[in-house]
Amino acid sequence: MTESDATLAADVLITADLRGIDSHGVARLSGYVRLHEMNRANMKPNWKIIHETPSTATVDADNGLGLVVAPNAMKIAIEKAKNVGTGWVAIQNSNHFGIAAYHAMMALEHDMIGIAMTNASPLVAPTFSKERMLGTNPMCYAFPAGKHLPFVADMATSSAANGKLEIAQRTGKSIPKGWVQNKDGNDSVDANELKKGGALLPLGSSHDAAGHKGYALGAVVDIFTAVLSGANYGPWVPPFVSFLDPVQNLPGKGIGHFVGAMCVDAFRPVDEFKKNMDNWIERFKNATPINENQKVIIPGEPEFTEQEKRLKNGIPLNEKVVLDLQSLAKKFNTEF
Amino acid sequence: MTESDATLAADVLITADLRGIDSHGVARLSGYVRLHEMNRANMKPNWKIIHETPSTATVDADNGLGLVVAPNAMKIAIEKAKNVGTGWVAIQNSNHFGIAAYHAMMALEHDMIGIAMTNASPLVAPTFSKERMLGTNPMCYAFPAGKHLPFVADMATSSAANGKLEIAQRTGKSIPKGWVQNKDGNDSVDANELKKGGALLPLGSSHDAAGHKGYALGAVVDIFTAVLSGANYGPWVPPFVSFLDPVQNLPGKGIGHFVGAMCVDAFRPVDEFKKNMDNWIERFKNATPINENQKVIIPGEPEFTEQEKRLKNGIPLNEKVVLDLQSLAKKFNTEF
Repeated sequence: MTESDATLAADVLITADLRGIDSHGVARLSGYVRLHEMNRANMKPNWKIIHETPSTATVDADNGLGLVVAPNAMKIAIEKAKNVGTGWVAIQNSNHFGIAAYHAMMALEHDMIGIAMTNASPLVAPTFSKERMLGTNPMCYAFPAGKHLPFVADMATSSAANGKLEIAQRTGKSIPKGWVQNKDGNDSVDANELKKGGALLPLGSSHDAAGHKGYALGAVVDIFTAVLSGANYGPWVPPFVSFLDPVQNLPGKGIGHFVGAMCVDAFRPVDEFKKNMDNWIERFKNATPINENQKVIIPGEPEFTEQEKRLKNGIPLNEKVVLDLQSLAKKFNTEF
Repeated sequence: MTESDATLAADVLITADLRGIDSHGVARLSGYVRLHEMNRANMKPNWKIIHETPSTATVDADNGLGLVVAPNAMKIAIEKAKNVGTGWVAIQNSNHFGIAAYHAMMALEHDMIGIAMTNASPLVAPTFSKERMLGTNPMCYAFPAGKHLPFVADMATSSAANGKLEIAQRTGKSIPKGWVQNKDGNDSVDANELKKGGALLPLGSSHDAAGHKGYALGAVVDIFTAVLSGANYGPWVPPFVSFLDPVQNLPGKGIGHFVGAMCVDAFRPVDEFKKNMDNWIERFKNATPINENQKVIIPGEPEFTEQEKRLKNGIPLNEKVVLDLQSLAKKFNTEF
């Protein structure tokens, strides 16, 4: 990779670790390296805009890492928003982009609202199906505030992210009902169900509990990121992990992302918006709690708290991740 | 109302009835009339754009009905999308806008993607709270397809809409766990819990089942529709029903909506997009079902099926609604 691309990709990974999203941080580095070694990702992509209007663009990522192309696409969205109020960029032919929040939050320093979504390889079964058809397809919305921390909702559209299952697998615990179904489509509390042909459930879980809404949200992300950009969608999204073979006869190119930036002052003066955001945040933090010792949380608050802690005390790394990084350092003849 | 505004409002209501969303159709007419009689809504609004850029606008609805102002705001969004690729309109100082799908679907005939959201008076408790802080805050995304019906996801961000509780109340049945909590914040299956100080749960229901994501989604709708437009948000959203007193010391004006239109060909050629949408729809309809007699449903499909049926056989009206309409007809000296 070029040094500037490598620095940018590292920044995305370390930001995930700082925010406590360990599953999306440097733990993934060896996975990206394996993709490169198998010629499944292009580390020197010549990404380019293939279609545009004053408020939109479509980017071909040239099979590069989303870690590099998504922040650049967000820069394009921000420039367009400066010119015409909002900017929207669909990205095809890409690979895993790390945490959605990194890209969405780029808008905040410009007093803009930031949006980022990606599709991912299929793990989630739509309501009434036992087939894995959708990724955990996260969406992130970041809104600037005044004296308070920004509001940042970064969420998978599945009931639980795969990382939560992996934690349960390591501790040998069962998982809550509503996270997964088994290969026949029945309820399960087995954290290993995905390895046995089961599927993650969409947000809401069963049909009674409105799982069809989670399925619809995951589908909306799939369409914005892939059908609109020309990437692969649904069951055709290529796997991130290199030990799974790529799917054949693809309807599109790579995986897809979608990012957006909206100038707050394209709607109302920034100071009025921020004053109301502060009021919104204060009122919700002070909503009557069920238990006095657990107040209402503002989306993004736990991640900012974790970041402050880790900036002070350092980032705790899992032993397996340390060994992984040491072996990568040795392989590439560098220090760790 | 002017005749053209009345015709437009009637079209929004009847479209809801045609699509099988009986709770949002002519059943609400007497509610709108009561709002008018109590001077709580302006039937001859002088709505206007108070702020704009090439891709955005903010509209002051002049306390008019959302039924009238939201379709006009969507027209503005569509015109802006024709000019610069996308158009986004935030609306303050409005009242109930009927079904979100009506407004979002206006984009479809222009080969655009349509988006519509509204906030609503507080019924939903955020995760960890026993206080009602958010409305059922629906969001709708409408995508055009080729030979297939459009994909239209129109959903409340609560686990269940209030209408589902009303059906259970009429039949005296208990409701599934995860729809409501009681006034102390505990699980409940009592369909009358809202009348006893309880609250609806956000999509996902409990924290374990990712209810915090539903809370975040409802909050995102609240911020787009109200904090961005200058309307009231959170617990300050004025009630739709006229027998509840308006809240005092409001931070904004009326309720808020947010609509958007995105030209498909601002991202890729329309025929390519539609071909891929058709493929997406066919693949998902044919995902392996859990039970052979219940295939996967495409969002919007049940409403289009119902519309076809009702266009042929007429709209079945609840007896109470018929009596309501008859008494309105008498009052206004017209026929029913």
